Amino acid sequence: MTEQNQTHPDDDSYDPGASSLAGQVDPAVMAELLSIRSSIDNIDATLVYLLAERFKATQKVGFLKATHKLPAGDPGRETAQIARLRRLAAEAHLDPAFAEKFLNFIIGEVIRHHEAIAEDHEAALAADTRAAGPVPGTGPAVSATA
Amino acid sequence: MTEQNQTHPDDDSYDPGASSLAGQVDPAVMAELLSIRSSIDNIDATLVYLLAERFKATQKVGFLKATHKLPAGDPGRETAQIARLRRLAAEAHLDPAFAEKFLNFIIGEVIRHHEAIAEDHEAALAADTRAAGPVPGTGPAVSATA
Repeated sequence: MTEQNQTHPDDDSYDPGASSLAGQVDPAVMAELLSIRSSIDNIDATLVYLLAERFKATQKVGFLKATHKLPAGDPGRETAQIARLRRLAAEAHLDPAFAEKFLNFIIGEVIRHHEAIAEDHEAALAADTRAAGPVPGTGPAVSATA
Repeated sequence: MTEQNQTHPDDDSYDPGASSLAGQVDPAVMAELLSIRSSIDNIDATLVYLLAERFKATQKVGFLKATHKLPAGDPGRETAQIARLRRLAAEAHLDPAFAEKFLNFIIGEVIRHHEAIAEDHEAALAADTRAAGPVPGTGPAVSATA
């Protein structure tokens, strides 16, 4: 899933003060803005690492479903997930409609990942088929909701 | 931002085992699936609370910009944010293209929040104007990138 490997974590040219507003804003206001942005940057780093962990989990689900020929979707699971996320969002003072949209956004990416897993699985089955002779074809099992 | 207040956290009807596959899958496979889903559920709860915290921070930026009439966008900030998130994603073995798409998805929601803040600010200015007589109009300042 990684486009490139970063072997030099010191190679970080990020400037937390980067802004097209630099020099045009009252220094005290700019300092307040940069302070809030510093928190946003910390949250964003956490989000990236957490999303990476989530995709590791859904990748496991994708392999499990492909291996055991389980159906792609699981409407019962998805309905329960959405209801739970909306409730959690309300508790966290986050717009529940946004939480639902966020889950759908993530699921869209999961689908793409599972399609890739299923294609790999299909290719492996095809290789087995060429070795063992023709067998009835079965479509790949992918999970949209994990 | 909250559609409703949840005053009874015990009122949680979520079933972590909810699945349209129930009873149709080998119990050992189902157990493995539910184990991974339990981790996904924990990650999702963390994501919701973290996103709520991020929107609290961008809401502060929105108020700051509206108050000090700062311009909506900050291209210098946005460029630095995207480059950093792509680098962090690569380190976390997450697709950098997805990380960028994710940031854009969040920014879209931030824009909607800031528009609401700017509208409130505009309404407050209009009320002041009605009290003090006409002054040259200034558009609301909103921030897309925070």
